[in-house]
Amino acid sequence: MAESILEKGRLAKQASRILYTVSTAKKNSFLRALATFLKQEVSTIREANAVDLEEARKTGLSPALLDRLTLNEKRTAQMIAGVRDVIRLPDPVGVVYEKTRRPNGLVIEKMRVPLGVIGIIYEARPNVTIDAATLCLKAGNAVLLRGGSEAIRTNLCLVQILRRALQDVGLPERCVEFVETTDRAAVAEMLKLNEYIDVVIPRGSKTLIKFIAESSSIPVIVHGEGNCHVYVDESANLKKAEEIVFNAKVQRPSVCNAAEKLLVHEKIASQFLPRIAARLHKANVELRGDERSRSLIGSITPATEDDWHKEYLELILAIKVVGNVQEAIDHINRYGTHHSDSIVTADRKNGEKFLREVDSAAVYVNASTRFTDGYEFGLGAEIGISTQKLHARGPMGLVELTSSKFIVHGKGQIRK
Amino acid sequence: MAESILEKGRLAKQASRILYTVSTAKKNSFLRALATFLKQEVSTIREANAVDLEEARKTGLSPALLDRLTLNEKRTAQMIAGVRDVIRLPDPVGVVYEKTRRPNGLVIEKMRVPLGVIGIIYEARPNVTIDAATLCLKAGNAVLLRGGSEAIRTNLCLVQILRRALQDVGLPERCVEFVETTDRAAVAEMLKLNEYIDVVIPRGSKTLIKFIAESSSIPVIVHGEGNCHVYVDESANLKKAEEIVFNAKVQRPSVCNAAEKLLVHEKIASQFLPRIAARLHKANVELRGDERSRSLIGSITPATEDDWHKEYLELILAIKVVGNVQEAIDHINRYGTHHSDSIVTADRKNGEKFLREVDSAAVYVNASTRFTDGYEFGLGAEIGISTQKLHARGPMGLVELTSSKFIVHGKGQIRK
Repeated sequence: MAESILEKGRLAKQASRILYTVSTAKKNSFLRALATFLKQEVSTIREANAVDLEEARKTGLSPALLDRLTLNEKRTAQMIAGVRDVIRLPDPVGVVYEKTRRPNGLVIEKMRVPLGVIGIIYEARPNVTIDAATLCLKAGNAVLLRGGSEAIRTNLCLVQILRRALQDVGLPERCVEFVETTDRAAVAEMLKLNEYIDVVIPRGSKTLIKFIAESSSIPVIVHGEGNCHVYVDESANLKKAEEIVFNAKVQRPSVCNAAEKLLVHEKIASQFLPRIAARLHKANVELRGDERSRSLIGSITPATEDDWHKEYLELILAIKVVGNVQEAIDHINRYGTHHSDSIVTADRKNGEKFLREVDSAAVYVNASTRFTDGYEFGLGAEIGISTQKLHARGPMGLVELTSSKFIVHGKGQIRK
Repeated sequence: MAESILEKGRLAKQASRILYTVSTAKKNSFLRALATFLKQEVSTIREANAVDLEEARKTGLSPALLDRLTLNEKRTAQMIAGVRDVIRLPDPVGVVYEKTRRPNGLVIEKMRVPLGVIGIIYEARPNVTIDAATLCLKAGNAVLLRGGSEAIRTNLCLVQILRRALQDVGLPERCVEFVETTDRAAVAEMLKLNEYIDVVIPRGSKTLIKFIAESSSIPVIVHGEGNCHVYVDESANLKKAEEIVFNAKVQRPSVCNAAEKLLVHEKIASQFLPRIAARLHKANVELRGDERSRSLIGSITPATEDDWHKEYLELILAIKVVGNVQEAIDHINRYGTHHSDSIVTADRKNGEKFLREVDSAAVYVNASTRFTDGYEFGLGAEIGISTQKLHARGPMGLVELTSSKFIVHGKGQIRK
């Protein structure tokens, strides 16, 4: 098994050398062919998916995982629309984005280039096979994919279609490699392929991401947890604050940019908290609070130390009353996961202080944390949201799937 | 021991939160105080260094390592001049370098911020203590330093001076943490501190760097090997080519951007090779060659497959005759270490092809590979040269010691 994964890595690396200089036109032809073939093969894809689902039901997969595994009509349509979206995105490869001329006449430029081979390790959702592969390929990278065992038949079917589209436009089919072995040991093997894989992007549960980050000797881009905060400052417009808090918590509670904590300035707490609490109650949000917020809202569960650290991903919100913006910032930097945090304020100075001092991937003044997303930020697409500080931080689009190189034009310069 | 390193990590992280928002003026005051104290304490530093050297001689350290360990008058002066140079460098922290306005009115900017805590693991050269710490601190980062056991007394003395300068300007002395334990196990402990260290930069031998890259679960920025090439194309100005090849090989053969391989187009090989060979012979360069170059130069050692892969770091050069620019590019991408490679050519098309297709951190047309360096590239200083593709590639200056965050200004926007 180990040998076969090694071989896949080697072949993907070889294919990536060809992709390194492929034109935008050719990459877009591939994407067009892919969209066409996916549309043609929708019923084949859904049949494979039906077998995966049947097996998964037998093994007692949870309803949530069964849902993620399902490729219904709407989702296949979205998947195909996603491929067409990637065609429209500007190609980052070859773009020169910095230029300096040195006193000795050397002209030094920085050019974006593909990373090489990207390893994607994911779980139940088979649409990741297409979403991730198309973004990586558009940025000139080969991929080595490793999906979850529960989606194996759907994934194999999608990989076959990807390769057919590659062949159709004369690109090496090895640009998409797929690890069929559903054994977990296969992941461990993959994480040793430093020579062939340039970066690993895990997509899935906390457990998966933690395992990969800790055991990989290849650089990993971590899409981490979002324990996001909204802080309502003394000077906040309370109507705006209410809309922002409600949106950040309720609009889609299961995602990483949903708010999990509400911090409120003590001077407006008695006015704001009963109002927002009533609205959240109506939306079935469970509230937990520190002593001061509990005295203002009434019978809600006390928040424990553990609550301040937690990413709920469901309709729970923990509330704390703070003395000032500094206390809010300190709390967020201490307990947050450095994902997305927002201040609602009419005080310009406090807003700028918050933006500067909160150490998170995305920091907001007067907006919902729910905007932390590649589409919303104008990147056109998203391979994930990085919560680490190296290479990329926040939503990652095509540019974040590239590296750079210095290109230097000389006239015979030598070093003295 | 493990506990004490953990504690150092925790304290450095705490200190880094204060550094996160410290003004440029304050950081520069620290650097000025440091330069003053280093100058005052030169004799103390050199006494500590003398004890290290005496011990090292007793344990039979190699002459090369003894040289690296030595802080003579010239080197202490350079060290202090280096600190003054860092004062003059622009502070990257707080700089907004991208800005977009979205259709919903959100203004999204990208701002440079400190990375947090940088772990520096290095070997014999004690000047790294000052060089690395000052660059990291100027970029707003705390450091956890771990120097080689042979330099322990010198390093402790330098750390004490760093801390005195921090205190002098009212910054927490924990901004500089130092692991005194000279045991190798201490390094392993350090590499587990994901919670406290944001990035590890190893400086030293291949063995050290390999060990760290493979065993760290913290992101590592790898300063790798340089198997650098100069390719002399058919149309090259042979006088320029001679100067470039000679400079790239001979000017400082022990460094990573020195050329190790010479590729020559077959049409000019018979004219160029005898000429450059004679000049290199005179400079005591050992030549190794493929069959065709040996037939043109005469009695030189045959180059083996191993030679094409090797970074010599001494006066050895392996030579190969190639059929065209494509063959040169393929050879470099296959055998090179993706560090620095140069083409000498008068053909614009071949030059651009080489720049685009050679996948190295720095690719040159008509210049010596020896320019791959932070100072030469105008970065003002250099913490190292990255040969990896994530985060930073090529010479790393202050900007590469920062991360970024998105700052978003809204007017009450919520997500639909």
